[in-house]
Amino acid sequence: MTESAAFKSGRHFLQIPGPSNIPDRVLRAMSKPTADHRGPEFAALTLSILDRIKMVFQTSSPVLMFPSSGTGAWEAALVNTLSPGDRVLAFETGNFATLWCNVAKRLGIDVDWVEGDWRHGVDPAVVETKLAEDPNGEIKAVLVVHNETSTGITNGIAAIRQAIDNAKHPALLMVDGISSVGSIDLRHDEWGVDVTICCSQKGLMLPPGIGINVVSDKALANSQSAGFAKSYWDWAPVIKMNEKGFYPYTPPTNLLYGMDAALDMLLEEGIANVFARHHRLAEATRTAVFAWGLEFCPLNPSEYSDSLTAVWMPDGHDADELRKLILDRFDMSLGTGLGKVKGRVFRIGHLGDLNDLTLAGTLCGVEMGLGLAGVPHKKGGVDVALQYLASTSAE
Amino acid sequence: MTESAAFKSGRHFLQIPGPSNIPDRVLRAMSKPTADHRGPEFAALTLSILDRIKMVFQTSSPVLMFPSSGTGAWEAALVNTLSPGDRVLAFETGNFATLWCNVAKRLGIDVDWVEGDWRHGVDPAVVETKLAEDPNGEIKAVLVVHNETSTGITNGIAAIRQAIDNAKHPALLMVDGISSVGSIDLRHDEWGVDVTICCSQKGLMLPPGIGINVVSDKALANSQSAGFAKSYWDWAPVIKMNEKGFYPYTPPTNLLYGMDAALDMLLEEGIANVFARHHRLAEATRTAVFAWGLEFCPLNPSEYSDSLTAVWMPDGHDADELRKLILDRFDMSLGTGLGKVKGRVFRIGHLGDLNDLTLAGTLCGVEMGLGLAGVPHKKGGVDVALQYLASTSAE
Amino acid sequence: MTESAAFKSGRHFLQIPGPSNIPDRVLRAMSKPTADHRGPEFAALTLSILDRIKMVFQTSSPVLMFPSSGTGAWEAALVNTLSPGDRVLAFETGNFATLWCNVAKRLGIDVDWVEGDWRHGVDPAVVETKLAEDPNGEIKAVLVVHNETSTGITNGIAAIRQAIDNAKHPALLMVDGISSVGSIDLRHDEWGVDVTICCSQKGLMLPPGIGINVVSDKALANSQSAGFAKSYWDWAPVIKMNEKGFYPYTPPTNLLYGMDAALDMLLEEGIANVFARHHRLAEATRTAVFAWGLEFCPLNPSEYSDSLTAVWMPDGHDADELRKLILDRFDMSLGTGLGKVKGRVFRIGHLGDLNDLTLAGTLCGVEMGLGLAGVPHKKGGVDVALQYLASTSAE
Amino acid sequence: MTESAAFKSGRHFLQIPGPSNIPDRVLRAMSKPTADHRGPEFAALTLSILDRIKMVFQTSSPVLMFPSSGTGAWEAALVNTLSPGDRVLAFETGNFATLWCNVAKRLGIDVDWVEGDWRHGVDPAVVETKLAEDPNGEIKAVLVVHNETSTGITNGIAAIRQAIDNAKHPALLMVDGISSVGSIDLRHDEWGVDVTICCSQKGLMLPPGIGINVVSDKALANSQSAGFAKSYWDWAPVIKMNEKGFYPYTPPTNLLYGMDAALDMLLEEGIANVFARHHRLAEATRTAVFAWGLEFCPLNPSEYSDSLTAVWMPDGHDADELRKLILDRFDMSLGTGLGKVKGRVFRIGHLGDLNDLTLAGTLCGVEMGLGLAGVPHKKGGVDVALQYLASTSAE
Repeated sequence: MTESAAFKSGRHFLQIPGPSNIPDRVLRAMSKPTADHRGPEFAALTLSILDRIKMVFQTSSPVLMFPSSGTGAWEAALVNTLSPGDRVLAFETGNFATLWCNVAKRLGIDVDWVEGDWRHGVDPAVVETKLAEDPNGEIKAVLVVHNETSTGITNGIAAIRQAIDNAKHPALLMVDGISSVGSIDLRHDEWGVDVTICCSQKGLMLPPGIGINVVSDKALANSQSAGFAKSYWDWAPVIKMNEKGFYPYTPPTNLLYGMDAALDMLLEEGIANVFARHHRLAEATRTAVFAWGLEFCPLNPSEYSDSLTAVWMPDGHDADELRKLILDRFDMSLGTGLGKVKGRVFRIGHLGDLNDLTLAGTLCGVEMGLGLAGVPHKKGGVDVALQYLASTSAE
Repeated sequence: MTESAAFKSGRHFLQIPGPSNIPDRVLRAMSKPTADHRGPEFAALTLSILDRIKMVFQTSSPVLMFPSSGTGAWEAALVNTLSPGDRVLAFETGNFATLWCNVAKRLGIDVDWVEGDWRHGVDPAVVETKLAEDPNGEIKAVLVVHNETSTGITNGIAAIRQAIDNAKHPALLMVDGISSVGSIDLRHDEWGVDVTICCSQKGLMLPPGIGINVVSDKALANSQSAGFAKSYWDWAPVIKMNEKGFYPYTPPTNLLYGMDAALDMLLEEGIANVFARHHRLAEATRTAVFAWGLEFCPLNPSEYSDSLTAVWMPDGHDADELRKLILDRFDMSLGTGLGKVKGRVFRIGHLGDLNDLTLAGTLCGVEMGLGLAGVPHKKGGVDVALQYLASTSAE
Repeated sequence: MTESAAFKSGRHFLQIPGPSNIPDRVLRAMSKPTADHRGPEFAALTLSILDRIKMVFQTSSPVLMFPSSGTGAWEAALVNTLSPGDRVLAFETGNFATLWCNVAKRLGIDVDWVEGDWRHGVDPAVVETKLAEDPNGEIKAVLVVHNETSTGITNGIAAIRQAIDNAKHPALLMVDGISSVGSIDLRHDEWGVDVTICCSQKGLMLPPGIGINVVSDKALANSQSAGFAKSYWDWAPVIKMNEKGFYPYTPPTNLLYGMDAALDMLLEEGIANVFARHHRLAEATRTAVFAWGLEFCPLNPSEYSDSLTAVWMPDGHDADELRKLILDRFDMSLGTGLGKVKGRVFRIGHLGDLNDLTLAGTLCGVEMGLGLAGVPHKKGGVDVALQYLASTSAE
Repeated sequence: MTESAAFKSGRHFLQIPGPSNIPDRVLRAMSKPTADHRGPEFAALTLSILDRIKMVFQTSSPVLMFPSSGTGAWEAALVNTLSPGDRVLAFETGNFATLWCNVAKRLGIDVDWVEGDWRHGVDPAVVETKLAEDPNGEIKAVLVVHNETSTGITNGIAAIRQAIDNAKHPALLMVDGISSVGSIDLRHDEWGVDVTICCSQKGLMLPPGIGINVVSDKALANSQSAGFAKSYWDWAPVIKMNEKGFYPYTPPTNLLYGMDAALDMLLEEGIANVFARHHRLAEATRTAVFAWGLEFCPLNPSEYSDSLTAVWMPDGHDADELRKLILDRFDMSLGTGLGKVKGRVFRIGHLGDLNDLTLAGTLCGVEMGLGLAGVPHKKGGVDVALQYLASTSAE
């Protein structure tokens, strides 16, 4: 492949909420020569990473990393805690919840699937009811996607935890934090999450390649009796080897160099500040969408996501045609509609390494694209976003 | 982590046959900004990679890539072609054969395990006998590690194929080519391999993070009826999505940038030239070891590996003490003895991106280390290696 | 220095028209290991660069590169063509014209200095008059800054050439193209420029470190009799050594790797397309400034620069306070007012590697900054710029 | 240019004592996005660099940096301290002393040139005699190349200082430390050097692009009355602007990022340890050359250089043919013979970022090359070098 094929002058705006923009500091860290992953220096790096990453998850539990995508981390969570035929409660909040459900089904897990319209989050009352109807504890786990990357809906994990407690039900709480961790507050310990699932390429500001499980004591206890045959995803050897800074597989060395730099960046900024920054940038985005007179995919404002905004297209207008136009004219990649909302939704990613002017440029691209594509909308979205950003900018 | 901790002036010699040295051209390619893996340019890159990589495996079959380590690629090969309780034939040729056997066992596969002494390769006659004793075809697959990274033994895949054919047995032939592909001749099609297993970090000159399966028509046919529950490792969605240049998971984008550059390098040099280069460098290494009067881990010279040389320590001398001394004094990482040969063996990696003078520097480090560690040996290993390299250098 | 000191999350906007933004492709090219600058591969690279760079200057004359800043290239132009005490004609169009004049004076050149108000370009009629008043040809050279980086004024080189011709005067025409070359049309040959002065860090999209002289036959002829003692800046040995791909000094190897990549980028896009892109982005910027109701530093619209826009602050408002606020709040560096217009002017760079959305983000930052700083202005600058960009975007 | 042209598998050995090998840490630092060189962060970086670099020169005097090659730094030293027609005393110790002399002559300086055979250093007794014969102090400066990169001869600066003092002569002592600084002990203050000349690409482990002058109080005082017209090289504005962290020209930003990292590396190792490392590696090299039975370019062992070794070829054998063979066969660049010793000498660089095994690989390449080129020599050079390195390696 020649490089020229990809060249357009100026910086590409990557605002898919898939992999986020990688800070140049992380890219440079990843270009270090690969080291011996069985040597003493790499072990020290591993121990430091495994220690510092706990602050991002707000946990004192072990954080386990697999060379995998986020889908692998879903599978790892299931096969370590459950047995074939086990029943789990899950909610159709969007494409990724559906894909996770499919993973579970393919593995032979019995999914109690609460259908949804992809425009609402999980109702804690339903959780409580469902669990109350299961006095024998046949439901082994509740599966929730914290932030649905396909719909821009953030679920209330604390309220769901409360619902489980209200029902006095022993089910594990498994939370997919793939597009929330590092961007939106997720408190593994305080909220009583049993397994938090994550991966490298969103709030952690890395390229894809690392899947993550954060594992509570209860989950760990459950894993002793879990009935799935497993090897690659088995937590036990990872935990054991990690103690001395090693892994039961060849780790993705250069990604870990990047992780080291990314953790430095997150902790230098302060994790609460990181969350506040994303909330503010998300608010600016929503202000613009509202001013354009466009609808949000989520119908409930309290469920708007701080890491991406999914915009609902007016009837008769195709989101992917808009996205293609914006890519061709303005060299910006926006997120496509996935699954049921294909063509109905486009997504503006504002997670990871982002600041005011990059977001402003992003919104400018959307506003110009809407006009050129003939999508009915009101002008002024950028204007109000700028007013919001200006009035809330830190002195 | 500060960078200073790792600083030693001058270039670190990474001669573990784990991850190989990464060419700076590949490192630079990997530092490109991450792209939209659902966009048209990335799809074009994927199609180009999937096309060119076939030349490295000498195959016209599909090459499937997973975000995983090599151990994941082992698991993928098993769960796509077999069913729980299936019987496979495998050989104890070293640590990685043993680990692969353990993966199979953990997954509930019945491994017919032919024990070995870690100093001999697979005897094709035993393969033939074993299969001849299985007239009902209960053995579903023969598992062979082409090049044992722990012992420096290369097995004769063509002869093993012949043995299977002689026995007229329908078992699949699965070959772990992790430390041979891109360094040692492996002919997936011509040798009738059904699944070749590989990963990114050795002959492909990348960091770890990609597991590979190359899949014959027969293996693909078998996968239709394979009984393992599976999701992440399922070949079917990968093959389907790859057709248009996409993946059923978020691919490791920046590693794929590196893969693009690494394939350019291998194909520019010519794959036959790459194999010849490694054979010559391996011969030089062996000449030195022989001159030192040290023993090889493999007892059969016809099984010496061209991608690494495992040296057997004289009784009473610990390989890891030698390795530690060489690391401390000369900033060179050599491969440790693994499993049963822990302490008995050290390994000199000469795979991946390597040339004469880097190998020469490596052998100098070993020769000095042997002396300083008080390991009984004769001088002159470097001398004869240099004579060999000089006399065989291309005009 | 720790990296953390410089960290702000998200991408810094560097819109000073000093060094321009460096494309990541160029940054990666520059990180190649340094080669032997006396070896055959580096010579081939040099010959290729010296050949291709002529297309950027639209010349068939030799392009000479010095390891220096642009100020060095000024000095080189003077000492190769003139003698101490020689008279030159120069124009006070802004800070860089003044600095160049000072260089000439320090070297003992007699500068016939046409004063100016920093808000108008060179009047070709004045050139003609001045030269007509010099029948004995005592004026040896006319010095013009093509694009004044301090004021955003572009001078009409073709008209100045015509004025010289009208006066039938033998003076050399020396043009500082530092902030025009690679962004604004400059035709060395067609316009009869004798020495074009340039450097690496603006339209050529490199870091600073290379000064450039493009030398006409007439200038070369003059250099035979030029009376300055010189060594470093002497054209003769550069021209001689360049013939075979070498230099009379150790060349800035890694910058030349970057130059190779930058030339690929410029020539892939097409130099006419590069100019058109900058004109369009400049128009968008001007549309915004006009809508804000702010004044331009240049008073003559026909002299507006396509590589930067210098904005004149309303009385009582300090440009540097605005710049500081924008840097602090929005992590964007704008150009400071230099020399006589210190505090009166801020400059928006839109040269080098730039596209629509980066410019849009830039204008958003300015509009927010104006508001927060209490600078009297009308809203809507961003709006009209977006309208312009959208309506002119290429299908 | 395609990258493929330059590809050879494995790492190129760059052992020219021109630009030295650049540590990957420095290369990564240089790939940071360019910053505003008039902004506060860059000023802080500059102040930090200018402070720390003094430790490398062992001085409390100002260290001035020019965007230039080392030849520019020669010129800067002369034009700031002298007047046209001034007389200086200089010594033909090799090619670079001769080039510096030529720079001085071209500038109109009257060089009192003590001829030499390129195989001996400066005799302090001659310095004393020459100065004693100049009671009126017509000699304004003594020019000495500390380490002759063309011949591998290191001159005794302390003894030369003593000779000047013995003669009670007021001449300035100007020392070219280009290939000694950062590799060989040079004490600017203690040895009473008035101007130390240096550049970026040798012991400072950077690419070329920065020329350096370190300036004593006496030199600074002289510069007040120096009669050369000058602009670019003028010390005064550099010193003035540096006070606040700025420069009177656009500084080579990305090289300064590299300088920041290189200084970190040198100071972490400790400057005395850096000198000791180079001495030891030089000794190993000399041991090999001696064992090969080859002659050194320097005839006086006390003048052997610790940053490079120049080897004198046996009669009838061409050094450049040997160099070409080694480059073609083993991908190693050695230094060519320059000027009078063209073809008679090849040079092994062992300055900058170097460790034991890289040097060992280098010597292996030379030994193989000598054999293949049919250069008469004894075997065993590598052997004795390894014995030396092993016996002196730090526990």
